[in-house]
Amino acid sequence: MVFVLKPNISKEKIEKFIAEWEQKGFSTIYSVGTEHTAVCLIGNTAAVDLEHVVETNDIIDYAKRITEQFKAVNRTVRKDDTIVKVGDVSIGEGFFTVISGPCSVESNEQIVEIAKSIKTSGAKILRGGAFKPRTSPYAFQGKQAEGLMMLSLAKKETGLPIVSEIMNQTQIDLFDDIDIVQIGARNMQNYDLLKVVGKIKKPVLLKRGLANTIEELLMSAEYIVSSGNTDVILCERGIRTFETMTRNTLDLSAVAVIKQKSHLPVIVDPSHASGSRSLVPPLAKAALAVGADGLMIEAHNNPAKALCDGAQSLDLEQFASLMEDLRKRASLENKVI
Amino acid sequence: MVFVLKPNISKEKIEKFIAEWEQKGFSTIYSVGTEHTAVCLIGNTAAVDLEHVVETNDIIDYAKRITEQFKAVNRTVRKDDTIVKVGDVSIGEGFFTVISGPCSVESNEQIVEIAKSIKTSGAKILRGGAFKPRTSPYAFQGKQAEGLMMLSLAKKETGLPIVSEIMNQTQIDLFDDIDIVQIGARNMQNYDLLKVVGKIKKPVLLKRGLANTIEELLMSAEYIVSSGNTDVILCERGIRTFETMTRNTLDLSAVAVIKQKSHLPVIVDPSHASGSRSLVPPLAKAALAVGADGLMIEAHNNPAKALCDGAQSLDLEQFASLMEDLRKRASLENKVI
Amino acid sequence: MVFVLKPNISKEKIEKFIAEWEQKGFSTIYSVGTEHTAVCLIGNTAAVDLEHVVETNDIIDYAKRITEQFKAVNRTVRKDDTIVKVGDVSIGEGFFTVISGPCSVESNEQIVEIAKSIKTSGAKILRGGAFKPRTSPYAFQGKQAEGLMMLSLAKKETGLPIVSEIMNQTQIDLFDDIDIVQIGARNMQNYDLLKVVGKIKKPVLLKRGLANTIEELLMSAEYIVSSGNTDVILCERGIRTFETMTRNTLDLSAVAVIKQKSHLPVIVDPSHASGSRSLVPPLAKAALAVGADGLMIEAHNNPAKALCDGAQSLDLEQFASLMEDLRKRASLENKVI
Amino acid sequence: MVFVLKPNISKEKIEKFIAEWEQKGFSTIYSVGTEHTAVCLIGNTAAVDLEHVVETNDIIDYAKRITEQFKAVNRTVRKDDTIVKVGDVSIGEGFFTVISGPCSVESNEQIVEIAKSIKTSGAKILRGGAFKPRTSPYAFQGKQAEGLMMLSLAKKETGLPIVSEIMNQTQIDLFDDIDIVQIGARNMQNYDLLKVVGKIKKPVLLKRGLANTIEELLMSAEYIVSSGNTDVILCERGIRTFETMTRNTLDLSAVAVIKQKSHLPVIVDPSHASGSRSLVPPLAKAALAVGADGLMIEAHNNPAKALCDGAQSLDLEQFASLMEDLRKRASLENKVI
Repeated sequence: MVFVLKPNISKEKIEKFIAEWEQKGFSTIYSVGTEHTAVCLIGNTAAVDLEHVVETNDIIDYAKRITEQFKAVNRTVRKDDTIVKVGDVSIGEGFFTVISGPCSVESNEQIVEIAKSIKTSGAKILRGGAFKPRTSPYAFQGKQAEGLMMLSLAKKETGLPIVSEIMNQTQIDLFDDIDIVQIGARNMQNYDLLKVVGKIKKPVLLKRGLANTIEELLMSAEYIVSSGNTDVILCERGIRTFETMTRNTLDLSAVAVIKQKSHLPVIVDPSHASGSRSLVPPLAKAALAVGADGLMIEAHNNPAKALCDGAQSLDLEQFASLMEDLRKRASLENKVI
Repeated sequence: MVFVLKPNISKEKIEKFIAEWEQKGFSTIYSVGTEHTAVCLIGNTAAVDLEHVVETNDIIDYAKRITEQFKAVNRTVRKDDTIVKVGDVSIGEGFFTVISGPCSVESNEQIVEIAKSIKTSGAKILRGGAFKPRTSPYAFQGKQAEGLMMLSLAKKETGLPIVSEIMNQTQIDLFDDIDIVQIGARNMQNYDLLKVVGKIKKPVLLKRGLANTIEELLMSAEYIVSSGNTDVILCERGIRTFETMTRNTLDLSAVAVIKQKSHLPVIVDPSHASGSRSLVPPLAKAALAVGADGLMIEAHNNPAKALCDGAQSLDLEQFASLMEDLRKRASLENKVI
Repeated sequence: MVFVLKPNISKEKIEKFIAEWEQKGFSTIYSVGTEHTAVCLIGNTAAVDLEHVVETNDIIDYAKRITEQFKAVNRTVRKDDTIVKVGDVSIGEGFFTVISGPCSVESNEQIVEIAKSIKTSGAKILRGGAFKPRTSPYAFQGKQAEGLMMLSLAKKETGLPIVSEIMNQTQIDLFDDIDIVQIGARNMQNYDLLKVVGKIKKPVLLKRGLANTIEELLMSAEYIVSSGNTDVILCERGIRTFETMTRNTLDLSAVAVIKQKSHLPVIVDPSHASGSRSLVPPLAKAALAVGADGLMIEAHNNPAKALCDGAQSLDLEQFASLMEDLRKRASLENKVI
Repeated sequence: MVFVLKPNISKEKIEKFIAEWEQKGFSTIYSVGTEHTAVCLIGNTAAVDLEHVVETNDIIDYAKRITEQFKAVNRTVRKDDTIVKVGDVSIGEGFFTVISGPCSVESNEQIVEIAKSIKTSGAKILRGGAFKPRTSPYAFQGKQAEGLMMLSLAKKETGLPIVSEIMNQTQIDLFDDIDIVQIGARNMQNYDLLKVVGKIKKPVLLKRGLANTIEELLMSAEYIVSSGNTDVILCERGIRTFETMTRNTLDLSAVAVIKQKSHLPVIVDPSHASGSRSLVPPLAKAALAVGADGLMIEAHNNPAKALCDGAQSLDLEQFASLMEDLRKRASLENKVI
């Protein structure tokens, strides 16, 4: 149940209103926005007489039951689009922010070369895997802590903010210099990890699980936001279906649905979704057209020799050329690239 | 195995070459195009010594084994994009052809009003269901033969070519005045029906089955083309997955894959895929961006009272507004709308 | 809405009751059983005052709204298990009927040899494909009408009833001597074909589509039963999922669900589900244990040389040995094998 | 590549053989069994001349390339069935071990009452959730550490070994008194957690992820076994498909496949798979018939008031009655219940 407040209500009145509900055993979400300010009740609201509450509280404009399980990330509770800021970079409505870099950080030289090139091409954030979740225990598991330091170097050299995947909650201190902490698809429902990143003061990039519904993705975001961290970026990266000509099936409808249901930004990863370099450009353009707030694209200085996922990586020229193409299209979408 | 011929080979030589293979028990596909002319062998080619054939036949430029099961619809066999013509209307590379109309034809007035409106908005072909495949035997089964006559009237009034779904092979004569025969998703692997429409002299619109792979879609097209009808338009309309917030999961990657693997045109039906009016515009734009050759969109003069699928139908103003938006984008894709 | 009638109501009273509802525009299903006799209304019953009807009609024992879309096949409407009879053979609760034979009928010798052997082993019905739905137009399409005659010969030689798949409604006359007409998975929603087999006087074996829900399977059965043919046998044969180590994923839960929701018999095809000979015996035993009313198993006199699906066919000894194993188990399930 | 050794080879010779390969950069798995003793090479074995190795090493009986990615859990490497021991209880071929208990531990009284009852009925191990992975942050998250102590009490009172789910690696010390550590479906690919439980000295129950293939399940087991813990019990608990009448689709074929491909025991959880009490008995019987080594079944003293998943819990009488039924069947499968 959400109570949308009238404009210009004093802080004291709002706090009193919230306190009353919390005394009755409800949790509350307090959302301040330019579009509206609202208080959302969490708990069993079946017995709450909505009309009576509105009539007897002159600070309320209107009230509404929320049928969805997700509350804090629900657009009904917060009308304003959430714009996540990372230094100068914005992610959210009105922007089309491209994150790029290699699947796996391999060496100082590699990551710095790639970072410089993608920055020139227009990428705003550098990605690179340090801890790699691999199906086989015998496969390359990433450069680990050393890989994070290589990313830091690339950040220092280029000024690009950096994003990398965390694998478990004991690693959190290692991510001090990382600007955005990524939760991978396999960890989307690792709730203890979600609670931990819900307590940190930096943005979280939450990837949709291979077999998770849109609702489950939003519920996992709810774990983070309800723990106190509102800077969550969602990422559609393909779901598992019966189709085998692509690695996964990119669900672009999910982007359109999420933009309607939630105020959180949502980006698209066409590289992992398709598993194939030649499909990345058409899917990237489609992601822009469907309303995504950005992309996460794998680019490598030498895809043929990449330690992981070379087949889906663009080389640096291909990436530059794709960025040029996207720039021509962004204005049509009223987005700054 | 495909033999790409040198330019300017005489018809006699080609016929002789084909006859030799057919005597050895192979079937052949002969494909003439501006990019290249080719002869493709069907049958067990494992024992054919490819290099020897090339060396001993001076009409061959080069030869290649085709690993895919689909041959006649394979881009390796025919490099030119197939452009399907329906009167003045073209469907295929370089065009973005929008088909629109109601889920179900309901009356002369309804279909004529819709046809006039969508024509003004820029649709090039009118769709309308006369025979409706319904999950329940107790649901409205369409206006049947009468519905086809209503479509004919709308065609006469507006000049728009018409497309409607055939349910079984005994109906073929009823479709005399229909310009494009549609094979619905549930009939995609109704092979006897595919063979029947492979013998007619008009284009076939083949929808992907709910749970069919891209390869199976191309194999069903192969049934039609190998029966003699090369005018096949493929249609991606969503696949069945675990996601429930959309009716089906629109697989836009399939469009990009098909454009690489096959020379056939492929269009997208965002209405059936999403099941929701508000998702149609973003998915339509994404379909254009990903490389589709057109759209099939449900539009109705009064969606709230539609006899079927009203929730996913645009009203006529929404359709007009979407067309305006698409027109702005088509030139960026080098497509004529 | 179903009206369960009191015992011993005269035919006249029932006919009068039905006539009254049909005059009001409803269709009705009249179901006579040993457990109860019922009249089910089809149509928009929202406005019908259930309690009032019960109070004012002394032939009614009780009434109930049916939330499911399927009515005639619903256990709420008919409490008795449907037992389908084919000559001396019964299929339904209390029996465990095994259908066997080759994927494809190949010759008189082949089919007669197989028929004799499986009969000795305990199979009650002979299967054999004459018209084969194949993904590729270049693959063996079955012996067609000739294949049906081979089946007839085997029937004559052994006395086994025969079942074979119909591909389209124009073939119906060819199936005169076939005892059970099979609707294949790809045709499960070929509604025109369902209506045609709903008018014939012989049992129909309806296979679940690869990507069809249990509800859709029951709705397709509803097409047949509501057309007048109550002798429908359902068949679970695996659904399409992401798993690739088996050809399809056999959904044995579906059997348990169907036995609760419907009175129709349901059998299992472990051969097509698994695609692998070694998985057939464990899945066959599991099917018996989960409550299935029988099996459809591929057996061949020489699987290595089978024209189709050899990898999943048992040889005749393996089939005999499986039957022996199943016989030991059937009594535990109170079933006659 | 696996080298199966001749019988009665001295320890020194084997160690020397292994050392030689490790010097060449390979990892090795050394598997001792009653059926055969083998050394398996991990690494790039493409350049290894298998025949040459066999000819020049007289300790080798024969050698074989392993095409599967999983090695240590592969039946080719270890022919003997792994029998996991927990006190007096055995899990593996020849046994049918039933684990039961409530979804969630609620109180000392509840868990002790249930434990006593299921023990009397024939369950060999007590389950109970203390840390609960819930889709919503607002849902009951389990009794946590206190819940584990309640389980310990029930173990003390009944002598039943206990199993409970671990949510993250920081909890490992809390599981000191827990006999079997469960990895839930959502954590099946939490590789860091798998490595941690690979180092402990107690059995691990590894549940298949909702959308994970059989191969991925075996690869996750490989993480544990290759870390040093060979006592892994696999659990099939349903996969995510399009079907909605059951919560998930129980994949009993997976059990048959795993028994062929791997030596690890595999049990079935029909409660979570179906989500419905009435489906548990038929699926439990089918699991026994298909070859599973046991079951994990939810039972509760008062399902209607269960804090979680009441709809799928048997009450204690239903559980007793199911156990009685299973006992009659176990001997037919040559299994001790």
